[in-house]
Amino acid sequence: MKLATLKDGSRDGQLLVVSRDLKTAHVADGIAPTLQAALDDWAYIAPQLQDLYLLLNEGRAEGRARRPFDFDPANCMAPLPRAYQWADGSAYVNHVELVRRARKAEMPASFWEDPLMYQGGSDDFLGPMDDIVLAHEEWGIDFEAEVAVVTGDVPMGATPDEAHGQIRLLMLANDVSLRNLIPDELAKGFGFLQSKPATSFSPVAVTPDELGEAWRGGKVHLPLRSSWNGHLVGQPHAGTDMVFNFPQLVAHLAKSRNVRAGSIVGSGTVSNKDTKKGYSCIAEQRCLEMIADGEASTPFMRFGDTIRIEMLDEKGKSVFGAIDQAVKQR
Amino acid sequence: MKLATLKDGSRDGQLLVVSRDLKTAHVADGIAPTLQAALDDWAYIAPQLQDLYLLLNEGRAEGRARRPFDFDPANCMAPLPRAYQWADGSAYVNHVELVRRARKAEMPASFWEDPLMYQGGSDDFLGPMDDIVLAHEEWGIDFEAEVAVVTGDVPMGATPDEAHGQIRLLMLANDVSLRNLIPDELAKGFGFLQSKPATSFSPVAVTPDELGEAWRGGKVHLPLRSSWNGHLVGQPHAGTDMVFNFPQLVAHLAKSRNVRAGSIVGSGTVSNKDTKKGYSCIAEQRCLEMIADGEASTPFMRFGDTIRIEMLDEKGKSVFGAIDQAVKQR
Repeated sequence: MKLATLKDGSRDGQLLVVSRDLKTAHVADGIAPTLQAALDDWAYIAPQLQDLYLLLNEGRAEGRARRPFDFDPANCMAPLPRAYQWADGSAYVNHVELVRRARKAEMPASFWEDPLMYQGGSDDFLGPMDDIVLAHEEWGIDFEAEVAVVTGDVPMGATPDEAHGQIRLLMLANDVSLRNLIPDELAKGFGFLQSKPATSFSPVAVTPDELGEAWRGGKVHLPLRSSWNGHLVGQPHAGTDMVFNFPQLVAHLAKSRNVRAGSIVGSGTVSNKDTKKGYSCIAEQRCLEMIADGEASTPFMRFGDTIRIEMLDEKGKSVFGAIDQAVKQR
Repeated sequence: MKLATLKDGSRDGQLLVVSRDLKTAHVADGIAPTLQAALDDWAYIAPQLQDLYLLLNEGRAEGRARRPFDFDPANCMAPLPRAYQWADGSAYVNHVELVRRARKAEMPASFWEDPLMYQGGSDDFLGPMDDIVLAHEEWGIDFEAEVAVVTGDVPMGATPDEAHGQIRLLMLANDVSLRNLIPDELAKGFGFLQSKPATSFSPVAVTPDELGEAWRGGKVHLPLRSSWNGHLVGQPHAGTDMVFNFPQLVAHLAKSRNVRAGSIVGSGTVSNKDTKKGYSCIAEQRCLEMIADGEASTPFMRFGDTIRIEMLDEKGKSVFGAIDQAVKQR
């Protein structure tokens, strides 16, 4: 099924069930008020949401107390407008290697076996069409197109197999980065903080079964399309060159602590070794330019720029709806 | 006023108002179900909680629909059992300098002007008397005694003065660290993840006015007492050697993003230059030993060890109740 969160002026919005074709939606308030509430009690709530989803897809949800309405991503918050956890991996190690090569640094061999992951802020996510509001272009504004999963409860020490069974939902993410704040922040050794402003998510979160054969081996086997100011700049395949799958990423996070329901775990910037597939973040293109030409020529985002991130299935249908945002000055 | 969260089997527990002397409590369910709900609508909810607090302190809360009962920290979750944000500063730069000196590394001068802060996991906090359950002693289990604030909504780019007005509550924290996992994790450059298991908080969170004159200049001017296996090992003064006050720490976090209600911001390990005050984490004692003797002699915590963290006011009364935990094997 596909789930979204309607802007209603509240902090957590209102849970929606959305039709497979993303055309109609139905409030789920008779079932669960918010997506977090559904995740907190998934075994009980999910089947009820699934029933409504089936009725909606068959055009038979009219008979309920409320009516279906046209689904509009502009009225959506992030599926989880705020979450108790957002941890982002760097599963496409190719991307990490490229960044290192551009600054002539060796990448430790352990990076192929031990996932890189950072703890992100999760108190203030952006909806799929919300503006990316920032104070300074000079911060080096970049998009990062990613796939992310939402988990149920994963106990401390869970194996990847155990974690696999707790993957409830998938989404797309735009993990906005402030590239020019990163070097000083990483030099301090405590990870990202100011260099990672609010993250944005796709209009809908979908259960793994929605992906059919495209969800296998803990990876999503579809290309992820990024269009910057209307130009397609990347369509790397999310199932290719992903060194750690989602169950491995979730198990990494759960090594020394319980991971609780509603935690979001990201893939990191999707990146293929085949450079013809383009890029999912500007930094990667700049690295390629530095390696080839000695200097980067593609600038970061300017105020007014737009970024659209979307994933189409084998039939060309949008799975998650599109993240489609403009960068604006605060 | 003083607020706590009763264990009731739910994920967020039940909000309690606790008497100033920490002896009696009253459920606040007629006012707000959870502390997060209160923080989400503080201007409306806080005065109602304050009214109940006054009745409770005066012994006049009997007339309400429910009765006051004996307050027992063992039945408490963390005041926020899960939160949308936990960001921990290192405001006692003395501690940072000591750690660096012990490994013969220079501390950058910028550390005195630009706060160190890491983003922590916030989906699974421990209550004040919950066991610290971990898989391996070899991970180097350490406590870290800290003060923390809970904020209201702080807009992006807020000044320290603006942030000051959004400090809603104060708590004590035990930011448990796995010292032997830290070097490899920091070497990866993405900050702490596996090396920071679940954090614990004091039985009650208190509004700043509860501290009276001890809350001034955005700092808490009282000693923080840590007792390890029943022996007092530290009582550094939290108002001394705190290089960045809480408003500065919150403003640091808000530089490039909104900080939303219920965010928790920590002080980092409380540490005084005066080594006679003892230590708030074992790592600090080990650093002193390394500097003096060339090697550390104090071991990290063992399964079965206990740690008690408490802050007493000028009259010797416990402000927040005690964090009092045992380390147990998973």
